[in-house]
Amino acid sequence: MKKIINQPSQVVDEMLKGFVYANDERVERVPETSVIVRKDKKKGEVALVSGGGSGHEPAHAGFVGDGMLTAAVSGEVFTSPSPDQVLEGIKAADQGAGVLLIIKNYTGDVMNFEMAKELAEAEGIEVEQLVVDDDIAVEDSTHTAGRRGVAGTVIVHKMLGAAAKRGLSLKEVKELGDKLVPNIKSIGVAMTAATVPEVGKPGFTLEENEMEYGVGIHSEPGYHRTSIKSSSEIATELVGKLKDAFEFGDNEHYGLLVNGLGATPLMEQYIFAHDVEKQLEHEPIKIEFKKVGNLMTSLDMNGVSLTLVKLQDDWADLWYDPVHVTDW
Amino acid sequence: MKKIINQPSQVVDEMLKGFVYANDERVERVPETSVIVRKDKKKGEVALVSGGGSGHEPAHAGFVGDGMLTAAVSGEVFTSPSPDQVLEGIKAADQGAGVLLIIKNYTGDVMNFEMAKELAEAEGIEVEQLVVDDDIAVEDSTHTAGRRGVAGTVIVHKMLGAAAKRGLSLKEVKELGDKLVPNIKSIGVAMTAATVPEVGKPGFTLEENEMEYGVGIHSEPGYHRTSIKSSSEIATELVGKLKDAFEFGDNEHYGLLVNGLGATPLMEQYIFAHDVEKQLEHEPIKIEFKKVGNLMTSLDMNGVSLTLVKLQDDWADLWYDPVHVTDW
Repeated sequence: MKKIINQPSQVVDEMLKGFVYANDERVERVPETSVIVRKDKKKGEVALVSGGGSGHEPAHAGFVGDGMLTAAVSGEVFTSPSPDQVLEGIKAADQGAGVLLIIKNYTGDVMNFEMAKELAEAEGIEVEQLVVDDDIAVEDSTHTAGRRGVAGTVIVHKMLGAAAKRGLSLKEVKELGDKLVPNIKSIGVAMTAATVPEVGKPGFTLEENEMEYGVGIHSEPGYHRTSIKSSSEIATELVGKLKDAFEFGDNEHYGLLVNGLGATPLMEQYIFAHDVEKQLEHEPIKIEFKKVGNLMTSLDMNGVSLTLVKLQDDWADLWYDPVHVTDW
Repeated sequence: MKKIINQPSQVVDEMLKGFVYANDERVERVPETSVIVRKDKKKGEVALVSGGGSGHEPAHAGFVGDGMLTAAVSGEVFTSPSPDQVLEGIKAADQGAGVLLIIKNYTGDVMNFEMAKELAEAEGIEVEQLVVDDDIAVEDSTHTAGRRGVAGTVIVHKMLGAAAKRGLSLKEVKELGDKLVPNIKSIGVAMTAATVPEVGKPGFTLEENEMEYGVGIHSEPGYHRTSIKSSSEIATELVGKLKDAFEFGDNEHYGLLVNGLGATPLMEQYIFAHDVEKQLEHEPIKIEFKKVGNLMTSLDMNGVSLTLVKLQDDWADLWYDPVHVTDW
């Protein structure tokens, strides 16, 4: 296992220390927790709390800051944070206007965030929750009932963060989220699996000439293992799946995310983005915004995912609103 | 070779197309060249042009924009752009106040950028140049007389970009650069070598339990191959080398960069940053700013580099000046 780490059991704590060291002008860690919270919280602004297992960096701590998340809660690698930890995140984030929990759809996350919501409500904090299930690759999965939450979650962070900053109420932010989530769909491909430090070997094995469509960000099985395809062929497959899922119609507007899964060079992400562009040229839809980079990773997994969001109302404006976080 | 590409010979052209697609509100490509130039150029502002071989993304096109580079010129993978291409970059960038070329110290880059400077001067454009040689790992190297230019180059882009935006003249920006460059020093470690698409196999081979200190960003040999060390041990080695090179003195102020080499998860970069912090606690110096991330990569190389810049005057302010580029 070639990793720049110390004790595998300490990776999350040491990562959080390094993250705070590098960004101490903007964020702090709630003592004795795995909660990263922004320093410049605004009284009366709806707070957004997200998180989940570690290993998806820059998600979620890299998105903590003005215009995006108020706090991020990190569990151990690929493991949900406990309800107590999420509760600490809620308490640190709340500025009197209530807290929205943005949860990726994994059974452990949903259960623990929901329990934290109840605990916080018992302490008098108003809490709403939103479960993101954007991965169209498979129905149900190793750790999930229904569809998994993956890179599209970042779009929820960005747009709802902008909405909260604009002064929307908790009810309004939650309603916007409820409208937004069904309009976000993602699908990915992996060339290699991730290696969890405490496990020491990849979550599954792909031969030198193999890749797999639809792998999850915790190495959950995808829908088709095949010989290595070109970027153009991969774009054809992934755009095709999204096209079928959305049923592209005339004059629809979309936003687009190409997400590197951790070990994929930016060069390849841009080559893939170009192939996606070529595929989409044949479609009647208009792409309003695009973003390329490592946003929701899976440790050292080599691969990419593609996310589309079907836009309504002023969602593109929310996307372009200014943001001050570490990794945008 | 597990890469998301099409024809290996087309990777640079397709990457640039994908980059412009994703960032067309901010940048454009000069037709029939490998030059990326910002759209919002300011008349009368000194222009900064950098570049070199491709494979170091986000360097250099990811740093094109307000407050940083005016244009970036990309050669083939790990290959200098031709003088003609650099000339196109100079012509596209110049806003009447002259152009500063920021060159990483590789023989091919220095030669081709210098030739372009002469060609541009013959066309009446005022051009200065600055060669960055921050890598203290080795003297002379495979493609270099003297020290190699690596991740510290990004500090030059940032600070001189801020200086140009503040309205300094070409002479003043060049003088600032001459003062800045000798105060920037870097050193890295590689767990794996990069694979150039047209070559199809890694530039060198490290066994499963091996790593190498001081490897260059084109897989040039380092100074010591050893068994895999912990992050803490790597930090001890790299900070020790930088300490010796700078001869740390009381009350000196520094900026710090932890740079991922392409395939290194952000988690590991932050763990390493924490170990660097612990090493530096024993030193009399003060760290004014820190940044962690993939800034000057080497395709899919797994490893990190550490850069320190010894600060003078208002250099920390230049670091914090606002910037609008794709990858900061």
